[in-house]
Amino acid sequence: MSTFHHSDSGPRVISLEELARLIGGRFFGPVEPVMISGIAPIALAQPGQITFLSDLKNVQKHVLELQVSRASAVIAPENIEGDIPLPKILCANAYAGFVGALNFFHPERRFPPGIHPTAFVHEEAVVHASASIGPMAVVEKGARIEAGVVLEAQVFVGQKARIGEGSRLHPHVTVGDHCEIGKRAIIHSGAVLGSDGFGFYRTREGHEKVPQVGIVELGDDVELGANVTIDRATMGKTCVGNGTKIDNMVHIAHNCQIGRRCIIVAQVGISGSTIIEDDVTLAGQVGTVGHVRIGKGTTVAARGVVTQDVEPNSFVSGFPLKPHSEEKRIMAALRKLPDLIKTVRELKELCDKKGKP
Amino acid sequence: MSTFHHSDSGPRVISLEELARLIGGRFFGPVEPVMISGIAPIALAQPGQITFLSDLKNVQKHVLELQVSRASAVIAPENIEGDIPLPKILCANAYAGFVGALNFFHPERRFPPGIHPTAFVHEEAVVHASASIGPMAVVEKGARIEAGVVLEAQVFVGQKARIGEGSRLHPHVTVGDHCEIGKRAIIHSGAVLGSDGFGFYRTREGHEKVPQVGIVELGDDVELGANVTIDRATMGKTCVGNGTKIDNMVHIAHNCQIGRRCIIVAQVGISGSTIIEDDVTLAGQVGTVGHVRIGKGTTVAARGVVTQDVEPNSFVSGFPLKPHSEEKRIMAALRKLPDLIKTVRELKELCDKKGKP
Amino acid sequence: MSTFHHSDSGPRVISLEELARLIGGRFFGPVEPVMISGIAPIALAQPGQITFLSDLKNVQKHVLELQVSRASAVIAPENIEGDIPLPKILCANAYAGFVGALNFFHPERRFPPGIHPTAFVHEEAVVHASASIGPMAVVEKGARIEAGVVLEAQVFVGQKARIGEGSRLHPHVTVGDHCEIGKRAIIHSGAVLGSDGFGFYRTREGHEKVPQVGIVELGDDVELGANVTIDRATMGKTCVGNGTKIDNMVHIAHNCQIGRRCIIVAQVGISGSTIIEDDVTLAGQVGTVGHVRIGKGTTVAARGVVTQDVEPNSFVSGFPLKPHSEEKRIMAALRKLPDLIKTVRELKELCDKKGKP
Repeated sequence: MSTFHHSDSGPRVISLEELARLIGGRFFGPVEPVMISGIAPIALAQPGQITFLSDLKNVQKHVLELQVSRASAVIAPENIEGDIPLPKILCANAYAGFVGALNFFHPERRFPPGIHPTAFVHEEAVVHASASIGPMAVVEKGARIEAGVVLEAQVFVGQKARIGEGSRLHPHVTVGDHCEIGKRAIIHSGAVLGSDGFGFYRTREGHEKVPQVGIVELGDDVELGANVTIDRATMGKTCVGNGTKIDNMVHIAHNCQIGRRCIIVAQVGISGSTIIEDDVTLAGQVGTVGHVRIGKGTTVAARGVVTQDVEPNSFVSGFPLKPHSEEKRIMAALRKLPDLIKTVRELKELCDKKGKP
Repeated sequence: MSTFHHSDSGPRVISLEELARLIGGRFFGPVEPVMISGIAPIALAQPGQITFLSDLKNVQKHVLELQVSRASAVIAPENIEGDIPLPKILCANAYAGFVGALNFFHPERRFPPGIHPTAFVHEEAVVHASASIGPMAVVEKGARIEAGVVLEAQVFVGQKARIGEGSRLHPHVTVGDHCEIGKRAIIHSGAVLGSDGFGFYRTREGHEKVPQVGIVELGDDVELGANVTIDRATMGKTCVGNGTKIDNMVHIAHNCQIGRRCIIVAQVGISGSTIIEDDVTLAGQVGTVGHVRIGKGTTVAARGVVTQDVEPNSFVSGFPLKPHSEEKRIMAALRKLPDLIKTVRELKELCDKKGKP
Repeated sequence: MSTFHHSDSGPRVISLEELARLIGGRFFGPVEPVMISGIAPIALAQPGQITFLSDLKNVQKHVLELQVSRASAVIAPENIEGDIPLPKILCANAYAGFVGALNFFHPERRFPPGIHPTAFVHEEAVVHASASIGPMAVVEKGARIEAGVVLEAQVFVGQKARIGEGSRLHPHVTVGDHCEIGKRAIIHSGAVLGSDGFGFYRTREGHEKVPQVGIVELGDDVELGANVTIDRATMGKTCVGNGTKIDNMVHIAHNCQIGRRCIIVAQVGISGSTIIEDDVTLAGQVGTVGHVRIGKGTTVAARGVVTQDVEPNSFVSGFPLKPHSEEKRIMAALRKLPDLIKTVRELKELCDKKGKP
């Protein structure tokens, strides 16, 4: 049975000591068992709940908040300083500990294997017995749905498309004909894979369509946000590499090659044939012109427009794209521009006057 | 029976005097009845139709247009000046009068109560007898559909989600598990509520998902445009307050708190944990960085990027954000920049020359 | 039978001479037949495949690439210079020749006429016998589906909407009540036609909705990308003219009039009542304020914001909008701004010093 979040089972209760064992942390607290039934941020936690302090930024402020928190316990980093006035679990990676606890208290929703009676699965599609196909989903001829896949309600999977093991497609996802999705993908509602690339050629009468006969291929462990669109290649593949995470409403045009472990934030637009190497971060609302290459490890700050190739490990921003530090200097300088114009006018008058006999 | 626009009943006819009574205006016209069968803008109105002059901007121009209009009558503000050469209805709020007439001539589409035979409603969902569930809609286990709700064709409502009284969800809307929608909401097609927040933490191998176990909660009288996406909170709620109106393709990230009566125009992107107080307007394509607070009554002009907290009742724009008047001064100054560079070069040469013996 | 791409028939083989005839080019090659079974870009083509050199940009570079290509033949422009070391087809319009070959090797997917048993078509809708209605599609009362139309899976067509001859709507398209689509349209997944325009008027309590009773009307040969949204007019029509091509995630607000043969690239946002004349190009992420007119043949460069009317045949960019050459000069000048401030400060100090006795 495939499992994802939002189980409909009841709330779960655990002793702090057991929870420490579960999330791989060390328990510090009273001898009598502390029972925990939920997790919440410091300011919102109630008695019976555990809270967390996942990083060491502003740690002194958070320690003060903990002193007035109603939480019954806290997860914190091992090397924390300051007096924590609560029973606690210390973890080498407190963020992983927090996620472990979150997973315990909010177990994933389980989807029963099998095909919902209202779904339509073509007789020549292949659906693994452990896969779950939801109400009103459509799986077309020749499609292949692998082990543990969840297609939620109203999902569409086109002809000869392939959905890899353990992937979950939320309601209203569209996977076009021949597209391929790797293992453990999470695709949010309204995402469209395999719409045609935007390709036309000019004739005397207008614009003629260039057939888009390629596909979209996602690697393993990819997550796509709601209403993302990825166009199929003209020929060949539009690719997204393993472990890349893409936020809502990102547009990826035909023939792009997106590397591994990239982070692409909401509303980014990536023009055709862009190459994005591994470990690149594109912040919100970034755009790229087509046919550029963004080197490994680079970060483009919010709203930047990538107008040319970018070296690996750069931190760039602006339009046209510049080193981020330069863009910030220019932004600061801009606020002085109206005064500068006035100063120059005065200087010029002064010089003109002096220039005269 | 729930009623919305685009009735399939035939056209409606009414006397001007009756229409005046209906929309709460005062009638001025001939003794013999003027029959009206439709409403249209001044330039397009035909004989038999009423037109309108809803505000006092450019009133003289509009009065001239009325003098050559083919309309049979006009709705206008009470305090209008100038000679209107048509039978008329004068209203204290002419805009409300115009809307009243629009509603009369274009009565809302009625949706019959009941569940369409092709819809799937889980046996443990609760659907009010007066609600209308359209073809191919899916309502999952534990969901609650209240009185007078219309779920149009192919809508998805997830487990334990709640749709409040009188709300209308257009075709292909997705409401994720546990999300809550207030009364009289209007949600346009393709909108997604409750996709996961974009939350990951870094490990040596790549990005690990932070479970997103919160919900989305809309207040009453909220309208969401087509293909809007609102992510569920990591924990707790992503909220949109009563009476807030959101245009197409707006992205709202996890844990945002949007106040009451806000206006958020198309393609705005709001990053995680942003707090937007009541009566804020964000114009088209605005972006916000995360964790900022925008004070009550503030307007951010089109394309602005909110990079820091904003005081209440500000009018701001640009990137980084500035008072709008300053941004406009900078924009004007920018056009002088190439000449300024030239002037400064000349001044420098002059000074250098003079500086020499 | 309607035909579109991605046939599930097997691969096709043809002699080069026959292919030349098919695509209207002239054959140059050996006497013995050269059999071709596919098409691919120069760098990827395998023996047995044909490649192409569709334009004369960088022709010398491409001719060198051809000399090491594994392709068995090439399509090239008639007036090409340089030694092409392969059997070839020369075409007056090599791009059209390339598209012809692409169409031959990748014949369009055929959709069988008829209504899928899982679709819902209202008994008072009119569906042409040659149309194909896919699984879970919904066609409401009074809708009209013309000859050769393909509605793929899960498409929605509202009351009294009309889909013109030969149009193809991909899965999850929404066409609202009363909207009209011309002939041979291609609408990609997730596109929404006929959502309400974003129209409200202010009262003491908040924002009251202005009913949006108009429609959306698309001309012939229009293509809309994935997740495009086009709002219905308040009254009258939001129009898109014949032959206009619109990329993914473009937003078009109520009452816009878009001309013929326009190209609107991804993530553009067009505000209400904008008039765009014929043959206009809007590059990626452009925005327009409302109520402006963009003259025939104009191009707005990427990210530009159209803040006022634009003359025909302009090439404009920036925010506010300027001639593109001026915007580029300003962008170049900006990089000198921080130094300029320093220079002016020095000049001022010099002048102040000199000014002293």
